[in-house]
Amino acid sequence: MKAETIAVGSELLLGQIVNTNAMVISKALQQIGIDVYYHTCVGDNSERLKEVFQAAFRRSDVIILTGGLGPTMDDMTKETVSSFLKLSLKTDETSLEHLKKIFELRGITLTENNYKQAMIPQGSVAIPNRSGTAPGILLNHNDKIIVMLPGPPFEMEPMLMDTVIPYLSKFTNNTIHSKVLKFYGIGESALEESIKDLLIKQTNPTIAPLAKKGEVTVRITAKADNRESAICLIEPVEREIRARRDDYFYGYDYDMVEEIVVKLLKTQGKTIGVAESCTGGLMAHRITNVPGASACFERGVVCYSNNSKVELLCVSPDTLNKYGAVSEQAAREMAEGLRVISRTDIGVSITGVAGPDGGTKQKPVGLVYIGYADVNGVEVFRHMFTGKRIDVKERSVNSALHTIRLKLLECR
Amino acid sequence: MKAETIAVGSELLLGQIVNTNAMVISKALQQIGIDVYYHTCVGDNSERLKEVFQAAFRRSDVIILTGGLGPTMDDMTKETVSSFLKLSLKTDETSLEHLKKIFELRGITLTENNYKQAMIPQGSVAIPNRSGTAPGILLNHNDKIIVMLPGPPFEMEPMLMDTVIPYLSKFTNNTIHSKVLKFYGIGESALEESIKDLLIKQTNPTIAPLAKKGEVTVRITAKADNRESAICLIEPVEREIRARRDDYFYGYDYDMVEEIVVKLLKTQGKTIGVAESCTGGLMAHRITNVPGASACFERGVVCYSNNSKVELLCVSPDTLNKYGAVSEQAAREMAEGLRVISRTDIGVSITGVAGPDGGTKQKPVGLVYIGYADVNGVEVFRHMFTGKRIDVKERSVNSALHTIRLKLLECR
Repeated sequence: MKAETIAVGSELLLGQIVNTNAMVISKALQQIGIDVYYHTCVGDNSERLKEVFQAAFRRSDVIILTGGLGPTMDDMTKETVSSFLKLSLKTDETSLEHLKKIFELRGITLTENNYKQAMIPQGSVAIPNRSGTAPGILLNHNDKIIVMLPGPPFEMEPMLMDTVIPYLSKFTNNTIHSKVLKFYGIGESALEESIKDLLIKQTNPTIAPLAKKGEVTVRITAKADNRESAICLIEPVEREIRARRDDYFYGYDYDMVEEIVVKLLKTQGKTIGVAESCTGGLMAHRITNVPGASACFERGVVCYSNNSKVELLCVSPDTLNKYGAVSEQAAREMAEGLRVISRTDIGVSITGVAGPDGGTKQKPVGLVYIGYADVNGVEVFRHMFTGKRIDVKERSVNSALHTIRLKLLECR
Repeated sequence: MKAETIAVGSELLLGQIVNTNAMVISKALQQIGIDVYYHTCVGDNSERLKEVFQAAFRRSDVIILTGGLGPTMDDMTKETVSSFLKLSLKTDETSLEHLKKIFELRGITLTENNYKQAMIPQGSVAIPNRSGTAPGILLNHNDKIIVMLPGPPFEMEPMLMDTVIPYLSKFTNNTIHSKVLKFYGIGESALEESIKDLLIKQTNPTIAPLAKKGEVTVRITAKADNRESAICLIEPVEREIRARRDDYFYGYDYDMVEEIVVKLLKTQGKTIGVAESCTGGLMAHRITNVPGASACFERGVVCYSNNSKVELLCVSPDTLNKYGAVSEQAAREMAEGLRVISRTDIGVSITGVAGPDGGTKQKPVGLVYIGYADVNGVEVFRHMFTGKRIDVKERSVNSALHTIRLKLLECR
């Protein structure tokens, strides 16, 4: 079964928002063995939407459209699709009831343009929208499955997962299964060179390396009758790749380094605190994104001012005067200070110049010190990162999290 | 001039990454008056890429491809495009020199597959890549402009802005200019109802409302000979919309509420500190993303444990025992405690249940208290947010930032 997505909305073509829906839909379809071959974005223009839909209708079995179902006048997805398929629109009573109830709950009057949202093409089924007003649409027409979902991701996603995926999974009898190996500290070319022979002879599973900021992933994808057989095909390839490059391997699939760190901390029964200067809270944010992080994350301190470094971390004013806040010495005292004051097993510090201003010849933008304190003492790592302010923040946090991971692995 | 983008990479179709390049390119093209009508993503498959390129070549004047220029075997963009246009590939000596220099600097050997990166189609010009190895390609063929850029955004973006946009801007003699008005606290339908007459009679400029998480934007887009004339067309429409809904208006275009908050703090010469529990550092991270935030942001405390609330914020243990850490009382003491201890003008606290676990009947997931302390005392705001852990974190921070903004505006 071949599928494609069509996102409708001029805001996408004007670069105001990014099409995350295509990613979420593709990931979900892949897991039930449906190949996605194209993503298209088109504006709120009936003629161009019709052209794009026509191409999709010709080449794909499943077409998932997002956006253009709202109450406003530039929402025209179902009108255009219905007209192309020569289907009329009718009011769906259940959707209309739902709409009325939502507006009543919110204590606001149902405006006229909202009635339009309850209309669906004849022969289609409405998909309930628990997070918003516009229902989705599921239409099986001439052996093609056409799905229309609202644009806002928090409305689209539950409708996709609760209704569309269960419906589509009935039609597939083979599975694509993918496993992603994640590496940190090695470049894409170097990794590819060391597995070149595997890449040349690949058929099923396929092997695809991909570079991302500071890390490289290798995706192994197998096609089989069922999930178990696909996993069996992947296993020997995975073992071979890991055997060659396990020194840089750190996780699978959607594993985030912060999840691995939280898991290691919990397993080892350790607590952690972080002291951040240039990363401004991003490190604490990333760790606390992991559900259950409260079991090991004791506190974070965003010590932007020198005062806060002295007061909350007992950094010596002399150190700050003599070496500056961005220095090996400050990073050392921050990590150790936090560990002692918070009585945690591990204290981590980050201090650097995130830019765009504040850089000097001695201490340029991108210079970052990461301190790691535990019962064995303190170690400080010096880095030079490139990119914008947000890139320096992100790379610093990635590096600090990998430092913690490697240190915790040493303790096992 | 009509343009479109084609992103090449199976990782996009498998839902592993999102196509942010399309957004960045569209935004840049819009500013020089080039209309973008389509975005397409296609996998690392020569046949399907050819099909997509063919459609683009037929309907658009400018085609910008991203991805598939790397050293690995599944990189095939320039090979496919060259073959479609019947152009041969040749080595670009400058690019090869650059490649050799990079590898020398990094202290690694140039592997054979890297030579492929320095090949470009005959008649094309190489676009230097300052952040990576693969050069971009600029090709003017049969009155069509074809641009190929690497997939990684931090390589693509500088090449786009430094070379492609200046080149393309020579061909345009009209400008599209857009202004976005941002509203917080009002729904899309309600906003649209109050400007319905303007929406009906719109021609140039066009007016488009759009709902995002917790906010609504209205995009006003004008087409004119030059930027100044476009701005003149937008001005009266903007004035009329603001006259009707200025109660919910907060900013323009890519204004972020954190930028507005930092600007207001600086103008008023005030300092701020934040005490975060459930948002885990996201509030501090958002504020410190603003360059120059150090002038007003004194410190942040991520007080995940009860101990840290007592030690760093002087919250009374009695309060925590009697009302719990997620309570109006705790939020009050956190905000005031931080303000006093850090000697800042403003102290803000956030405490709540981010989920997925930890919710009870009395205190369900999504319950969040936001405390705001200044010289006039402390106020606490109670909210119920929906969504996943990260949604609750984001909505809490948005709400806290808007609270600060409104409070600071009262002081003017």
